[in-house]
Amino acid sequence: MTIQNSKRIKTQKLFNPKTVAVIGATDRPGSVGRGLCKNLLEGKNKRKIYFVNPFKNKVFGIKTYPKITDIKERVDLAIIAVPAKIVPEVAKDCARKKVLGVIIISSGFAETGEQGKKLQNEVKKILKDIFLVGPNCLGVINPFIKLNASFAPQTPQKGEIAFISQSGALIDSVIDKSLDENYGFSWIISYGNEAGITLTDFLEFVYQDKNTKTIALYLEGVKEGRKFYQTLRKITQKKPVVILKGGKTKLSQKAVSSHTGSLAGEKEIYSAVFKQAGAIEVESVEEMFDVAKALSWLPQCKNGIGIITNGGGAGILTTDYCQSFGIKLPKLKEKTIRKINLSSVIPSHWSKNNPVDIIGDALSDRYKIAIEALLSQKNIYGLIVIQTLQIMTQPLENAKIIIEAKKRWKEKPIICVFMGGKNVKKAVKLLEKNKIPNYPDPLRAVRAMKTMISE
Amino acid sequence: MTIQNSKRIKTQKLFNPKTVAVIGATDRPGSVGRGLCKNLLEGKNKRKIYFVNPFKNKVFGIKTYPKITDIKERVDLAIIAVPAKIVPEVAKDCARKKVLGVIIISSGFAETGEQGKKLQNEVKKILKDIFLVGPNCLGVINPFIKLNASFAPQTPQKGEIAFISQSGALIDSVIDKSLDENYGFSWIISYGNEAGITLTDFLEFVYQDKNTKTIALYLEGVKEGRKFYQTLRKITQKKPVVILKGGKTKLSQKAVSSHTGSLAGEKEIYSAVFKQAGAIEVESVEEMFDVAKALSWLPQCKNGIGIITNGGGAGILTTDYCQSFGIKLPKLKEKTIRKINLSSVIPSHWSKNNPVDIIGDALSDRYKIAIEALLSQKNIYGLIVIQTLQIMTQPLENAKIIIEAKKRWKEKPIICVFMGGKNVKKAVKLLEKNKIPNYPDPLRAVRAMKTMISE
Repeated sequence: MTIQNSKRIKTQKLFNPKTVAVIGATDRPGSVGRGLCKNLLEGKNKRKIYFVNPFKNKVFGIKTYPKITDIKERVDLAIIAVPAKIVPEVAKDCARKKVLGVIIISSGFAETGEQGKKLQNEVKKILKDIFLVGPNCLGVINPFIKLNASFAPQTPQKGEIAFISQSGALIDSVIDKSLDENYGFSWIISYGNEAGITLTDFLEFVYQDKNTKTIALYLEGVKEGRKFYQTLRKITQKKPVVILKGGKTKLSQKAVSSHTGSLAGEKEIYSAVFKQAGAIEVESVEEMFDVAKALSWLPQCKNGIGIITNGGGAGILTTDYCQSFGIKLPKLKEKTIRKINLSSVIPSHWSKNNPVDIIGDALSDRYKIAIEALLSQKNIYGLIVIQTLQIMTQPLENAKIIIEAKKRWKEKPIICVFMGGKNVKKAVKLLEKNKIPNYPDPLRAVRAMKTMISE
Repeated sequence: MTIQNSKRIKTQKLFNPKTVAVIGATDRPGSVGRGLCKNLLEGKNKRKIYFVNPFKNKVFGIKTYPKITDIKERVDLAIIAVPAKIVPEVAKDCARKKVLGVIIISSGFAETGEQGKKLQNEVKKILKDIFLVGPNCLGVINPFIKLNASFAPQTPQKGEIAFISQSGALIDSVIDKSLDENYGFSWIISYGNEAGITLTDFLEFVYQDKNTKTIALYLEGVKEGRKFYQTLRKITQKKPVVILKGGKTKLSQKAVSSHTGSLAGEKEIYSAVFKQAGAIEVESVEEMFDVAKALSWLPQCKNGIGIITNGGGAGILTTDYCQSFGIKLPKLKEKTIRKINLSSVIPSHWSKNNPVDIIGDALSDRYKIAIEALLSQKNIYGLIVIQTLQIMTQPLENAKIIIEAKKRWKEKPIICVFMGGKNVKKAVKLLEKNKIPNYPDPLRAVRAMKTMISE
């Protein structure tokens, strides 16, 4: 059953279930089942969790059921993590139990070849009246409702990004990175082989999710080309979609699937489709979240950016990147220059140009004056603030000034480039906690700023 | 005086001085003079440090001299950090004292316009028989001989990279980053306005320095075009040179200098020159050290790389990047496949292809088998090892296996992609301490691997 066939209210219930059963529950160290059980128990105050395992009486000290049909209460969501060959049998139980939806974590289906395809079709038939996620997936996560129905090693923070991924393994690393960089997720969805609910369904779902501001998507291939395009086009008018496409080259397509056949030139076709649909295509996982973070934290703006720097070289590089990405750097108005001069905290030989070079020995008072002056200029719609690490530089104070500026200038995105390592960490954490993206390199900052510009 | 005009032995003495005097020594917090004094004192067991300041009797508890000429002993190196207008006066003292060399940290010379240019020429004339670094520079650093003759906030670790930069501010952030990522430097040189010793001189110098394996260069403009090209071409035959050029676009050239004039198309000319000379051009500071780190830690190899991954998506992306950068991924030989199959630790449905997908639930025993099998195949000359962070993944154990493999296969470069954040840090530190570069994203790893390939 796909989402379109059903009433929305049912989908809501499926993805915010009141009762969940894990089929293949176990506490064996290092196992997928253990991961699932542990993660689900994080939400035990929000919903009832049942464990199904005919060979064990207890898992994590909780009584198990031999079969899902032994559970008395109605089950909204069943999660299956048993070997592929047993899946048809437990799927039949799920059908009998009339669960609302099933997530099949188990692999060994269509991704393995003809035999697996047959098995997948068999399971699909058994579950034809039931929502089906997977098989061959990591599961789904929503930190807002404390639902971690996956075997990911960690639960992410709440946030504004919905990450939908064809690769389950990427998700785990992405979560670990996000915990280090203080951004969070509304949904993380591993959609696997799409035997039931498809990528397009999930896109539609997060489009309607009120916590989701930005959608990040990793995909290798698309099954329903036209529907995917139409959905994508609709979504991008309201929410930005950042896409990373794996399997662009002939060689990697072999790795995606042995039966992809000849797909020369596919890269260009996909890129054209993404562009036409208004999506933002990126080249790497790092770039995907560099961009998604900024999109989820900052407002869109018109083309016209100010640059403030305490290092000439960094300012020059940033200018290079802006120009090659088509980002306009408006000239400073007389009034802006006067404001900075009047302050008298910035030495008189400052640049008088955009980028504004407040010179290496800048303390935070110079940042304050320059930030305020630039944001006051009407045709400067956003700001890149660069900090190289000099002997007198005050990273924490500078961060605080930027946080204040963000509060005063809500409609103008501010992106930071606090360059360095050890000695900028605290300040960067502070920026991130206040939803100001920081990048260690100007190139990454300018790439993110590019996506802020809406015209 | 330039290096070419002199005997090599004198240059050696200049850059490994037995006596150093700081003119403008002070301990005033946040000042350039204080930074200089503190940094130089780190090497006080290696050389004699004199402080010159007519207005203070003591600096950091050490007796000062009113003038450099008041010092009895011979002075090898004088470092000047006084306001520009006083520089001619103290320079005359240096000439009288017959110091071997002078570093002028002070700014306010040719970079500020005509007036400053005149002042610079005046100083140059005064110091015509003395080696001169700068003016308008951060200074020079060599951790091997405990020489930090700069006002950088920190001293880097010893290492194999010589970093020569036209921008002083970049250096400080680069050092801070290097301390976080465990790579080090043989020399860091801020060459400033090149009134005396030029960029080309310094290139020649680090070319001959035995601790330097790789040269990283940030520049905005080149003064002696032909000489620069010839020197570069000579050097790249023995040591890789990684170049980042700032001021590529018309707009940023305005920021480089107001009197650069029309330089349309300059970007292409510079890139062509770098390429012709055999240098590696990069696009960002991050890429510069991603690449320099690998070049300084790993051997060069022929074109033929193996990929090992525990995540399908990451393997596919890596394959894409390899193919678009022209990196060959040799097919696995029967013998290699047999080795992996015989081990029986990798499930029989593994990829049998390069990339070798050892599957998400891989423990470190699978990494061990796959690494050994791939490196044993003759036409696989280097390895990219990818680790996504699954519930059962063993980052530290995997790191140890890779460290062992590096020892056994000295001639084959191994580059890691331990993806994640919080939970891979320890393992990444361990890799870095053993001079195995790790990148958080496959794209950055492949870019680095590309520079390992010598044919």
